[in-house]
Amino acid sequence: MERYCRDWHGDVTTGAIAVLRPRSTEDVSKAVRVCAELGVAIVPQGGNTGLVLGATPDAPENQVVLSLERMSTIRRIDADDFSAVVEAGTILSEFKDKVEEAGMFFPLALGAQGSCRIGGNVSTNAGGINVLRYGMTRELVLGLEVVLPDGSVFEGLSTLRKDNRGIDLKQLFIGAEGTLGIITAVAVKLMPMPDQVVTALLGLNSLDDVIALYRRARRDCCDLLSAFEFMPPLAFTLAREAMPDLAMPMSGDHPAYALLEISGSGLVDVSDLMERFLEGVMGDGLVVDGVVATSKAQARNLWLFREGMNEGQAKRGPHLRTDVSVPLSRLADFVRDAEKAVYDALPECVCVSYGHVGDGNVHLNVLPPGDLPRSEIDARIYRAKKIINDVLDGHHGSISAEHGIGRLKKSDFDTRLTEVRRKLLTAAKTAIDPDLRMNPGCQLSFARD
Amino acid sequence: MERYCRDWHGDVTTGAIAVLRPRSTEDVSKAVRVCAELGVAIVPQGGNTGLVLGATPDAPENQVVLSLERMSTIRRIDADDFSAVVEAGTILSEFKDKVEEAGMFFPLALGAQGSCRIGGNVSTNAGGINVLRYGMTRELVLGLEVVLPDGSVFEGLSTLRKDNRGIDLKQLFIGAEGTLGIITAVAVKLMPMPDQVVTALLGLNSLDDVIALYRRARRDCCDLLSAFEFMPPLAFTLAREAMPDLAMPMSGDHPAYALLEISGSGLVDVSDLMERFLEGVMGDGLVVDGVVATSKAQARNLWLFREGMNEGQAKRGPHLRTDVSVPLSRLADFVRDAEKAVYDALPECVCVSYGHVGDGNVHLNVLPPGDLPRSEIDARIYRAKKIINDVLDGHHGSISAEHGIGRLKKSDFDTRLTEVRRKLLTAAKTAIDPDLRMNPGCQLSFARD
Repeated sequence: MERYCRDWHGDVTTGAIAVLRPRSTEDVSKAVRVCAELGVAIVPQGGNTGLVLGATPDAPENQVVLSLERMSTIRRIDADDFSAVVEAGTILSEFKDKVEEAGMFFPLALGAQGSCRIGGNVSTNAGGINVLRYGMTRELVLGLEVVLPDGSVFEGLSTLRKDNRGIDLKQLFIGAEGTLGIITAVAVKLMPMPDQVVTALLGLNSLDDVIALYRRARRDCCDLLSAFEFMPPLAFTLAREAMPDLAMPMSGDHPAYALLEISGSGLVDVSDLMERFLEGVMGDGLVVDGVVATSKAQARNLWLFREGMNEGQAKRGPHLRTDVSVPLSRLADFVRDAEKAVYDALPECVCVSYGHVGDGNVHLNVLPPGDLPRSEIDARIYRAKKIINDVLDGHHGSISAEHGIGRLKKSDFDTRLTEVRRKLLTAAKTAIDPDLRMNPGCQLSFARD
Repeated sequence: MERYCRDWHGDVTTGAIAVLRPRSTEDVSKAVRVCAELGVAIVPQGGNTGLVLGATPDAPENQVVLSLERMSTIRRIDADDFSAVVEAGTILSEFKDKVEEAGMFFPLALGAQGSCRIGGNVSTNAGGINVLRYGMTRELVLGLEVVLPDGSVFEGLSTLRKDNRGIDLKQLFIGAEGTLGIITAVAVKLMPMPDQVVTALLGLNSLDDVIALYRRARRDCCDLLSAFEFMPPLAFTLAREAMPDLAMPMSGDHPAYALLEISGSGLVDVSDLMERFLEGVMGDGLVVDGVVATSKAQARNLWLFREGMNEGQAKRGPHLRTDVSVPLSRLADFVRDAEKAVYDALPECVCVSYGHVGDGNVHLNVLPPGDLPRSEIDARIYRAKKIINDVLDGHHGSISAEHGIGRLKKSDFDTRLTEVRRKLLTAAKTAIDPDLRMNPGCQLSFARD
């Protein structure tokens, strides 16, 4: 029971009346009808890897967890149609592997892909490292099957690429975090497998230069650019604190780093493109130093720094993790302003800013000294979050770029909501879930009429 | 008054109490409030170029047309942010020209672009020839400003690329054809201008071969493929009936044709890519003959056949125009089955099938003999539509790939609606427009509780 009632970070453990584990859409429908009769609320759950408590029950005496993990059949992979239909409980990486066996590619890529499940990815509109080229999960979804709060089934598993029959109802459920119904299966787009991938780690003089480099890469490499991350120098220190055997990829220390990937299939020549791109930007002095991974193992090593820095931060103790976005033209200013504001108020803390440049998505994390008492650490985390959100508001940013709202960000979401948005959200919620039984407590607290 | 109450084809002319032409969002809000007080319904209208009567009033004594044409300010083009904010009444081609002056590209491309307005494009989720690469209008929209049925303003003109703050309300209004509110301004994505464009017209042995060619092009040319159309041999005859001076692009006659475009910016070499692609597919015998346009004028000439065939059809008299979609893996079968069914029942008619292969979008038009009496022509049009829709249902297709539902396809939409979809559409409509005053008669007829 506990693993369904504890969040991914292990920060929160609650309880539930029961955990339901249906094997079919029909079972889900029956379970929903039974819960309706009993007046019990439902918290839908996929891989339980969310970072904002969206799938963690918060009223143990009145909620069941409905886990989709037993619905893990890949119903169809159709390379000729560039599409697949997959049940909600399928683990993302298992699906991607099967797709690859069919010579195709499903581009959703995120750290949790070995545990997260596709229904959760759709319910949270997951992001990841390839968004700049392929879009958020929303843009990969062709159709949905959803069990509605009254137990009826919305049958929308079409794989049509173009279907303009009025209001696109499936959009409502993408990103709703299970507050409007339970996604049981998903039809998605597939792409040709990019069998050429070239990765480069580059050292630059400033974050402004990193952003200038992104703009140039977006143009010079056209739609073949598939990832563009920025990292601070501290990334290497943090990664090596978690993985001491990691070989430093380049000598010297630079104020800012970019990790970028170009990929393609067929007749495009991605290596040649990377070479000519780097010739240009190094010739102009925009990039100071760099390494290019020419094998999968080398590329893996470069990405390990990006992933290892998360582990390294965890090793330094409890800290603030943020997931915010700003317009690209404000990204450098936002990081500068927010870090300054944090350091002014909390000089003993360490800021670590990194993220997906192309999407304006910044993870600006704040690490209090690990040897402080827990209450002192928590006070700094709370204060830093407020400081960052205030700066973010000034830059017209979003408090959730890719993780969703869940229960963790509900209050920060609520206080920033305009009356018109609140009215529309309430109208949508009460129209579809009039008894407020789907994941209550998630995203927004609604009052019954 | 008449031009606001007549549809694009001139098939239907109605009337209205008045035409309102607000200059600002505030004016729209005031107008909506006044209409609410008077109990008058509103038909929002952009460029009035829609093909399904979505913007044509149908109850002259109780409806006003609200034209957005005076709201045509481009509020911002920000090349550094890859985004723009533009008012709903801006003509698409004027916006695209301004974007190009800033070195950027807005990829929405359709025949009506010299007259249609961006608010209408969003309200109908317009498609066009570049959908296979850039998606429908929905995928180009970052934010919306919408005046709601009570006159309040949904302020959502954010240009954030990633914003996962719960349910994405703007999605409801995209494709709603003005039934939920009035879109007054739009924030959109911009791309780097693809300054290299290569176009080819190829002759093949069958539609099956055209589809095999698409699959290969999608892989070989990766994400640089920007258009892929199919046309029948009759296209050239029809185009030359409308434009007798058009030079035939190639000798010989082939059972099927593909018109494809590869484009890119920066360091990719699109000409070389096209050359190597054609070498491969001609070497394998998949493509029998072809011409490559190496100048803008030559490319324009190839596209003129695609566009001229529409004019040629019009010159032959009233005919059935369809806009349907099927899964890509069923496209050739659908065209074959539907044409056979039409010819079996109506041997005196001529079928013309063409469209966007990558999207599974077929325009299967049926031309009755032009010298029949109008009532005989109309009877054949009606019968052919029913035959095609029956075949379409068997292939799990959509009766509207890109044109929307409007009033023209309402009945065909209604009869195919499942109870669950009807319930959800009614719930969404009555939640947002409880008095049913926004474009009533469009998409679906709702009854007040």
